[in-house]
Amino acid sequence: MSDSYTLPNLAGDWPKMLPGWVWLCGAGPGDPGLLTLHALNAIRQAEVIVCDALVDRQVLDWAHPQAEVVFAGKRGGQASPKQSEISAQLVDLARAGKKVLRLKGGDPFVFGRGGEEAQTLARSGVPFRIIPGISAGIGGLAYAGIPVTHNDIGQSVTFVTGHDPHAVDWAAVSRASATLVIYMGMKHIGHICDALIGAGRAGDEPVAIVANASLPKQKVLETTLATCAVDVVTQSFKAPAIIAIGRATLLRQALDWQALVADGDLRDPDPVDNPPIRGKSDE
Amino acid sequence: MSDSYTLPNLAGDWPKMLPGWVWLCGAGPGDPGLLTLHALNAIRQAEVIVCDALVDRQVLDWAHPQAEVVFAGKRGGQASPKQSEISAQLVDLARAGKKVLRLKGGDPFVFGRGGEEAQTLARSGVPFRIIPGISAGIGGLAYAGIPVTHNDIGQSVTFVTGHDPHAVDWAAVSRASATLVIYMGMKHIGHICDALIGAGRAGDEPVAIVANASLPKQKVLETTLATCAVDVVTQSFKAPAIIAIGRATLLRQALDWQALVADGDLRDPDPVDNPPIRGKSDE
Repeated sequence: MSDSYTLPNLAGDWPKMLPGWVWLCGAGPGDPGLLTLHALNAIRQAEVIVCDALVDRQVLDWAHPQAEVVFAGKRGGQASPKQSEISAQLVDLARAGKKVLRLKGGDPFVFGRGGEEAQTLARSGVPFRIIPGISAGIGGLAYAGIPVTHNDIGQSVTFVTGHDPHAVDWAAVSRASATLVIYMGMKHIGHICDALIGAGRAGDEPVAIVANASLPKQKVLETTLATCAVDVVTQSFKAPAIIAIGRATLLRQALDWQALVADGDLRDPDPVDNPPIRGKSDE
Repeated sequence: MSDSYTLPNLAGDWPKMLPGWVWLCGAGPGDPGLLTLHALNAIRQAEVIVCDALVDRQVLDWAHPQAEVVFAGKRGGQASPKQSEISAQLVDLARAGKKVLRLKGGDPFVFGRGGEEAQTLARSGVPFRIIPGISAGIGGLAYAGIPVTHNDIGQSVTFVTGHDPHAVDWAAVSRASATLVIYMGMKHIGHICDALIGAGRAGDEPVAIVANASLPKQKVLETTLATCAVDVVTQSFKAPAIIAIGRATLLRQALDWQALVADGDLRDPDPVDNPPIRGKSDE
C-alpha cells in the first residue's frame, strides 16, 4: 500500500474493502482533485481496478503497487468490451475473491450504466457498494464557469443523453427547462439542435460545448443552437464533451474562474447590458 | 496546519489559496467521505470558513486549528443571514486579505446560490475559484440505492427546485422526464404532487423521499404521488430531504447497498415481476 498520503480521521473509520465485494465508484469529470475521499480510500485498497477510458491515468498512481488494472473503456466509435462483458467480468472477479473497484468517469448513476452493473451484481449475489462521483454535466461545466442553475434562469435543469436522439421528446425537454445539459451528444449534435429549434427554442440561443472538461486540455466552444453543428466541425470539437444550452452559458463571461486563476482577469465581470442576467443576491 | 493527513501527489501540485481570494466549494450531500480532494485541500488552507448549516461539522475538524468558522446557514423556516449579507461578508473578508473558503452543502451551482455569490465576487473584483461538489439529488439518492438515470427509464432526468412551486411549469416538467428530482420540495410537497397528478402522472407512481441523505441518520420514505403528502406528516419526514419521483425509485429494492453493508441482504435482488425494470446489461 502506498504511504505517500493518509486520509483524515473519520468518525466510524473509513470503509474496508472486503474480498468478493465490488465497489462501483465515480471518478468525476477528469481532474484527479475531484475524486472524493471515499474514492481515494477505495483506490488504495483495491486488488483489481476495472477502469473506464475517461478516468485520468494519474489516479491510478494512487493505487496499491500490486493492484491489477483492467481497462474497460466505452468510448463512442471505438471498439471496447460490451457492457454485458464488463458486468460479467465484475462478477467473475468478485467470485474469485478479489477486492474489486469498478472506476467510472463522472458519476456511476448519471448516464454511466452503473445502475445496470449494480443490477447484475445484485442478481448474481455479489455484494457491492456505490460511491457517487461528480458528474461532468455539473462539475465539468463549473470548470467552464457555467452554473447549471441560477435564480434568474428558471426553476429546473434537464440532463439528457444524446446517444439516441430519436428516443427523446425534444419538445417536452425544451419546454421543461431553460437550461439543458446534453451528455454523449456530439455524434448527433445537428439533429439535437434542429429538434430544439423545431420545438421553439431560438436559433440564436447560446450554447457552450466543453470538451475534456476539468482537464488541462479543456476547450470551450461558445456558439448558438443554429451554428453549433458547423462550429463543432470547423473548430474540431470532439467527444468527450458536455453540451450546455441556454442563457446560463452566458454567465461564463463573469464566472470563468479558470481565466482568473491563469490571467487574473474576467472577460466581463459585470455584464449589465449583455447578457441580461442579473444576480438577485444584491437585491 | 493539521498533520493528521496528507494529500496524494498531483501533477502540477495542489492549488494554493492566496490572501484575498474566495474559494466557493461544495461539500457534498453530508457524508464527509464525499468531500473531494480539492475540498480537503481548501479546508486545510482556509483562514476563514463561511459554512452552511447543512455541512457536517466533522469536516471542520480537518481545518487549520486557527481557522475561523462562520456559520451562514440558510435553512427553510429558520432565521439566518440573508443571501446579500453572506455575499457581502465574503467580499469584506477577501478585502481584508483573508484566505476565504465558502463551504456549501451539495454542489454550489445546483440550487445552491453559488452562481449568485460568484457574480457578487466578480462585480466586486474579488478573485475566486469554484470547487464542485456532489449534489444531493445524485449522490444522496445513490445512498438510498436510487440511480437517477437507467436505460429502461428514459433518456433524461429533470432536477427542480420546489421552493416556489407556482413558478414551475409542472406539465412541461412532467412530460420531459420519467425521473424527477425535487430539491427543497418538502414545504410544498402536497402542491407539487397534485400538480404532477394534474399533469397526467399516475397517482400510484412511486416516490422516494430521502431525508438526511448519506448521513448515519438517513431515512427513506417509499410512497406514491397520491399518498406522499400524508405519509410525510404521519412519518415525520422533514427537510433537508430530496424527493425522487418515478420508476427509478423502485430499483432501490435491488440496489440498496447500505442494506448490504449493514445486514448482508437486499430486499429483492432480482425483482422480475415487480418492479418491471430489467437491466439491459445482460441482454
